[in-house]
Amino acid sequence: MDNIRKLVGADFPLFAFSHCRDVVAAVSRAGGFGVLGGSSFTPESLEEELRWIDDHVDGKPYGVDILIPENQALGTDIDIDEIVARVPQKHIDFAVDLLRNHQIQANREDVVDKLFLPTLPEAGEALMDVAFRHPIRLMVNALGIAPASMIDRARRHGVPVGALVGAKEHAVRQVHAGVDLLVAQGGEAGGHCGEVSTLVLVPEVIKAVKPIRDVPVLAAGGIMTGAQMAGCMAMGAAGAWTGSIWLATTEAETSETFKDKMVAATSRDTIRSSTRTGKPSRQLRSAWHDAWDGPQSPGALPMPMMALISVPTFARIERAADAGNPQAKALSSYWVGQGVGLVDSIRSATAVVQEFKQDFADAIETLMAAVEGGA
Amino acid sequence: MDNIRKLVGADFPLFAFSHCRDVVAAVSRAGGFGVLGGSSFTPESLEEELRWIDDHVDGKPYGVDILIPENQALGTDIDIDEIVARVPQKHIDFAVDLLRNHQIQANREDVVDKLFLPTLPEAGEALMDVAFRHPIRLMVNALGIAPASMIDRARRHGVPVGALVGAKEHAVRQVHAGVDLLVAQGGEAGGHCGEVSTLVLVPEVIKAVKPIRDVPVLAAGGIMTGAQMAGCMAMGAAGAWTGSIWLATTEAETSETFKDKMVAATSRDTIRSSTRTGKPSRQLRSAWHDAWDGPQSPGALPMPMMALISVPTFARIERAADAGNPQAKALSSYWVGQGVGLVDSIRSATAVVQEFKQDFADAIETLMAAVEGGA
Repeated sequence: MDNIRKLVGADFPLFAFSHCRDVVAAVSRAGGFGVLGGSSFTPESLEEELRWIDDHVDGKPYGVDILIPENQALGTDIDIDEIVARVPQKHIDFAVDLLRNHQIQANREDVVDKLFLPTLPEAGEALMDVAFRHPIRLMVNALGIAPASMIDRARRHGVPVGALVGAKEHAVRQVHAGVDLLVAQGGEAGGHCGEVSTLVLVPEVIKAVKPIRDVPVLAAGGIMTGAQMAGCMAMGAAGAWTGSIWLATTEAETSETFKDKMVAATSRDTIRSSTRTGKPSRQLRSAWHDAWDGPQSPGALPMPMMALISVPTFARIERAADAGNPQAKALSSYWVGQGVGLVDSIRSATAVVQEFKQDFADAIETLMAAVEGGA
Repeated sequence: MDNIRKLVGADFPLFAFSHCRDVVAAVSRAGGFGVLGGSSFTPESLEEELRWIDDHVDGKPYGVDILIPENQALGTDIDIDEIVARVPQKHIDFAVDLLRNHQIQANREDVVDKLFLPTLPEAGEALMDVAFRHPIRLMVNALGIAPASMIDRARRHGVPVGALVGAKEHAVRQVHAGVDLLVAQGGEAGGHCGEVSTLVLVPEVIKAVKPIRDVPVLAAGGIMTGAQMAGCMAMGAAGAWTGSIWLATTEAETSETFKDKMVAATSRDTIRSSTRTGKPSRQLRSAWHDAWDGPQSPGALPMPMMALISVPTFARIERAADAGNPQAKALSSYWVGQGVGLVDSIRSATAVVQEFKQDFADAIETLMAAVEGGA
């Protein structure tokens, strides 16, 4: 665990990706490494979140993740008004009807919104401007090759760069591009993911990058316990990158309805679908997916257009669900991995880190006992 | 590893599923536990294979796997002539055209065959008659709940019963049905599989069955190395169940063409498709799948009818491929898991077991070094 301590300063190589500042600060304070998902914020709100973290992290290290897709369906010189104008009427009608059919009041302006689109290139640059003004210890890119501008700027600030990969070939390209840390994320992960499982992808990536450069590889996808973390480290991972488990914490930004659904769900209740962002991402399966993937659906729009509908629409859905509308509860959903089947209660982020540490130590004992019993 | 030694007599809890008697005997002789896939044989040929194994296993323990599906699309009182007669002409024509379009000579009688169908219930009973006449140490059912007749007969012979499961709910039902060993097989596995990944399924199954009865759980799906095996055992698995890795051995029944394809493949080259058996099973993706899953396809037939076409057709394909026909090579395929991406050479089964042991020991050292570095 020395290599991770040297690279980013964390004692226990448990990386927690979260859009919630409370989770980021709590994990880092408890000895792990919190990473704030920066792409759900405007530059102004990101500045506010990072200032809050700086005030609450007790000097412990943390990082920021900014999602900059390698390929955009739209060009880079298009502005937000043009993008909104291109959202087809039938998609807007479908979203309005979907809400109304689930007893949620909605009009056109409730289901399509002129959002700040963090996935557009200039927005990514603006978010990086903010992030590099803070004492971050890691900058991560989540979608495609980390852009040269991110790597150059990080170098100048002395900040290592990490990148998520879902395939061996992408890992090799990232290492050649110059990243300092790889996150090999299996297809069981929540959010954008590929199809190769964590158990296969982690050793495959480690084997592929080793001859090129000694880059630590974190395991990601489905990891909800310290025992899984220990298992991945036995395969050579330098630590674990986690996301879904933090949605099941008291601090998380997820709705109460969604938290209840996480506790009730099994690992078979997720779906990999393009209907939330325009690219395949794993989510808790709900009536949303049955509708948008169903025969009446106009189909998902490409990234980033689909978010212009899904963000405001889900805001209404989760609000109505938490207010007690059972049909809204049926629609409620969020990004989550197959590991949701391992969640059986909602705890504080600090308690989750402590349990990871205990579980990690127990797993090593289990393995030792098995081997000694076998000697 | 004591519990597995007590249950089936193997020193190293590496279970090797194979249709090849040489692999089964070699793995058991090397300290692992070979399991012969019995359902590719008639009762007469199974008798011959098991007699050969008895003569070559040096008294080491081995097992047999007989696939008895819980649900049959056809009734149980239908005979093979009737089943052959029901294979639609358009499926036969499609198979003949597919071969001819790939420069493989074929007529109707070459692509549909009156096979012995081991998946029919009375065939399963006949195969069990044979197996229980030999000193097997484990009887495994691979598809659905182990039938009561299998469990009863195994009990009378003092043979433990194992079962493959791809979901937590199935594991719970199997334990209630009385099985002695569970194989939790993730969706990255070759052959029939579900969708939950090994890394999630293994701890989920262990957690679900523990309160019911103390049944050892083997991890399966994507495991090609001793490091992955150690990783799964850190999560509480009692050992590893493997299949695909044995196809990449000198002894294996697979064609030379297919072995070459395994070495060349990455983890993204597999597909979960119903076009070989009628139920979703993971295979190496080839021109076969592009055709049968393509727009001109009549679609897969249900189990067991699809095998009446795929078995004789693939026999011709692999023969033509090994004879040097490049178009036949494009069609060549077999069941294999995502772990195929970790295969980079063809070795003897004995060498594979030795490497598993070494790799397992190295993984434990890696984990210890990481923890000590972190203390």
